[in-house]
Amino acid sequence: MKPVKIGICGLGTVGSGTFNVLTRNQREISARAGTEIIVEQVGARRDNPACDTSGNNVSRDVFDVVRNPDIDLVVELIGGTGIAKELVEEAIANGKHVVTANKALIAEFGNELFAKAEARGVTISYEAAVAGGIPIIKALREGLSANKIEWLAGIINGTGNFILTEMRDKGRDFADVLKEAQELGYAEADPTFDVEGIDAAHKLVILASIAFGMPLQFDSIFTEGISEIAPEDVIYAGELGYSIKHLGVARQSAAGVELRVHPTLIPKKSLIANVDGVMNAVMVKGDAVGPTMYCGPGAGAEPTASAVVADIVDMARVLGAEQVQGVAHLGFASSALQDIPVLPIEDVETAYYLRMTALDKPGVLSEVTQILSDSGISIEAVIQKEPSAGAAQVPLILLTNRTQEKNLLAAVAKIEALEAIAGTLTRIRLESLD
Amino acid sequence: MKPVKIGICGLGTVGSGTFNVLTRNQREISARAGTEIIVEQVGARRDNPACDTSGNNVSRDVFDVVRNPDIDLVVELIGGTGIAKELVEEAIANGKHVVTANKALIAEFGNELFAKAEARGVTISYEAAVAGGIPIIKALREGLSANKIEWLAGIINGTGNFILTEMRDKGRDFADVLKEAQELGYAEADPTFDVEGIDAAHKLVILASIAFGMPLQFDSIFTEGISEIAPEDVIYAGELGYSIKHLGVARQSAAGVELRVHPTLIPKKSLIANVDGVMNAVMVKGDAVGPTMYCGPGAGAEPTASAVVADIVDMARVLGAEQVQGVAHLGFASSALQDIPVLPIEDVETAYYLRMTALDKPGVLSEVTQILSDSGISIEAVIQKEPSAGAAQVPLILLTNRTQEKNLLAAVAKIEALEAIAGTLTRIRLESLD
Repeated sequence: MKPVKIGICGLGTVGSGTFNVLTRNQREISARAGTEIIVEQVGARRDNPACDTSGNNVSRDVFDVVRNPDIDLVVELIGGTGIAKELVEEAIANGKHVVTANKALIAEFGNELFAKAEARGVTISYEAAVAGGIPIIKALREGLSANKIEWLAGIINGTGNFILTEMRDKGRDFADVLKEAQELGYAEADPTFDVEGIDAAHKLVILASIAFGMPLQFDSIFTEGISEIAPEDVIYAGELGYSIKHLGVARQSAAGVELRVHPTLIPKKSLIANVDGVMNAVMVKGDAVGPTMYCGPGAGAEPTASAVVADIVDMARVLGAEQVQGVAHLGFASSALQDIPVLPIEDVETAYYLRMTALDKPGVLSEVTQILSDSGISIEAVIQKEPSAGAAQVPLILLTNRTQEKNLLAAVAKIEALEAIAGTLTRIRLESLD
Repeated sequence: MKPVKIGICGLGTVGSGTFNVLTRNQREISARAGTEIIVEQVGARRDNPACDTSGNNVSRDVFDVVRNPDIDLVVELIGGTGIAKELVEEAIANGKHVVTANKALIAEFGNELFAKAEARGVTISYEAAVAGGIPIIKALREGLSANKIEWLAGIINGTGNFILTEMRDKGRDFADVLKEAQELGYAEADPTFDVEGIDAAHKLVILASIAFGMPLQFDSIFTEGISEIAPEDVIYAGELGYSIKHLGVARQSAAGVELRVHPTLIPKKSLIANVDGVMNAVMVKGDAVGPTMYCGPGAGAEPTASAVVADIVDMARVLGAEQVQGVAHLGFASSALQDIPVLPIEDVETAYYLRMTALDKPGVLSEVTQILSDSGISIEAVIQKEPSAGAAQVPLILLTNRTQEKNLLAAVAKIEALEAIAGTLTRIRLESLD
């Protein structure tokens, strides 16, 4: 396998995130790519203190990167449709593969850029252009390739979802939350792209073309923003069993395709209605698979870098290979697999739910909590029920903090030995998944 | 591009589903694969009325398929670790690629089978072995390849999740719901594999090896079933803000890897706690991307076939290519893109939320509903609030059934013209996403 040499153009939020992820996870990334990925050159008008490029060849002219004959793949992280477009065009003309996170560029100029790339025998990858770190392009292009896609619906702008979530949870109005989003750095000084749905429209156009197999049609999309949503609409929708989300919807019917971004009431019981804050999510309905959903961070330096680097690894798997082949069986080159020990369950640490049957007399809770405390196990919550009429026993329920299983088991044995406790304890592990 | 010839072994639920999806979606699948996929032979001990193989070369001996020199790729859908293992070994020895949905085979014998395949220069693909139609293997091997995976947690047995959901929602006990699950065909006559967590263990071992880059270690996994969960535990967990789910958890720490399947309390506000019934979901936490989640049907003929066919398409993209290349830019071969018209928003049909300000006098609601009824728009729900003290106006909120936008707009104009309605209507679209 020969190493793959890449050039990174742009060192903003996503550029520095990409550089840092490539550096920090070099071992995993090379083992998965099956070859080494070398950052041969970086092009950036200025350094970014968020990443240390002092050991790298850095040029102040990004066009140096696309003209560097040693570079196989150009990573365009400048954004916009001005210099970025020129740069990608020159990269293609010079026979270089391109990875980009640029949704506007793909949505508005993808048709012509893809045609140029195909004519030149190179590939443009753009996983990071939609829904940040969620591998939704891959899911649609590859994971669901067996399906006629019937429709997809996505929360694909985190700023808008943050605003609607705050309006619902705190009864605040649009302008007030927008101001906070700007202070938190979620929304740009000019929030039009986010709140009027243009950003979401860029992403939806890309998803729809992949889903239905049609050229990108950015001019045909219907867009309506969230600035007109009043706090009382959020309240009334809630009373009726719905959440309001800013949704991108693409649906195929006999008459044609629907492409629309607008505020939408969706049933609260729908999983996607529970995707809150800056998280993104895309539901896809395929004729064979049925409904599937993909959820995760839709923006930010490293979530977006995760998608950029995945595209680089995909290209490295192809470019580094001496012959046509698929992905390694376990994702890592078999020579790179590590014999990592699996911990015995006694050494695993989780929190616990404990339920026991206690005699209804004073001091039992104190005895139980003393045993836990002596074992260094602290208590998060207690439920002690009144006994039912005439009963001498009551259920006692405790949630503990995290502790090793062997420690918990020792404490449980002591609790079961108490005179005031009947029978054995019920014990269920608890994970907060955060 | 040369056509790719496949042989399907096994015509049970998944086998017939795979045959049907390949037949029904032939156009999309070929356009995505960039080449034709031909079912060259089917091996099955008996026909399955769920699919029509009368036009195909069907052999009663599945080993005929792996010995057929015209076949490039063998699809193993027999299940188990007896004949299926022999068949896959012979397919590899004969230089054929393999696609399988067999989780037991991969979890228990994957290490030796992968080694044999690599030595022979062929590939074993197994997306369908974990979480049915959710492309989770692809997400882990490719979509998240930039990340050190910190942990993953999954609801990866639909039967168990159905039982726990029914216990929670209806206060039923384990044995009672299990019986219903067996009658519905969700659970086998011998439910051990599902409710004792062995099926989930097979899947978790596969996910963990891909996540952490280690050989498959089925013997090291800790497994605890759900048969001991009492209805009161479900209730108390709920009171404390938690749901009980049968979770597979894999976590990497400095000391080693945790591999465990057991009932687990998880916070109700966590998205995965809201994945109910027979649905599967996997949360993956990567160091760059953060938390992501993948959700969908984890079993069934066509959801599983969706994953099987995706693997076939992936191999066809490699085998059919005359030179090394990536996936087509929009997933479909560019020559296969179709100019599908995008519908104007006036022609799009959705349901609507309507909010208006009405004079607080009798007959207003009747006037409004008459206009909607005359336009063929029926009403799903109404909220009419009491006026606040001294106010002459009240808010009136309606949910309509689905109608075309132009029809709704015409009715809205008539409502706005009513003397009893002040100002303009607020109008938000509604999607049930089912």
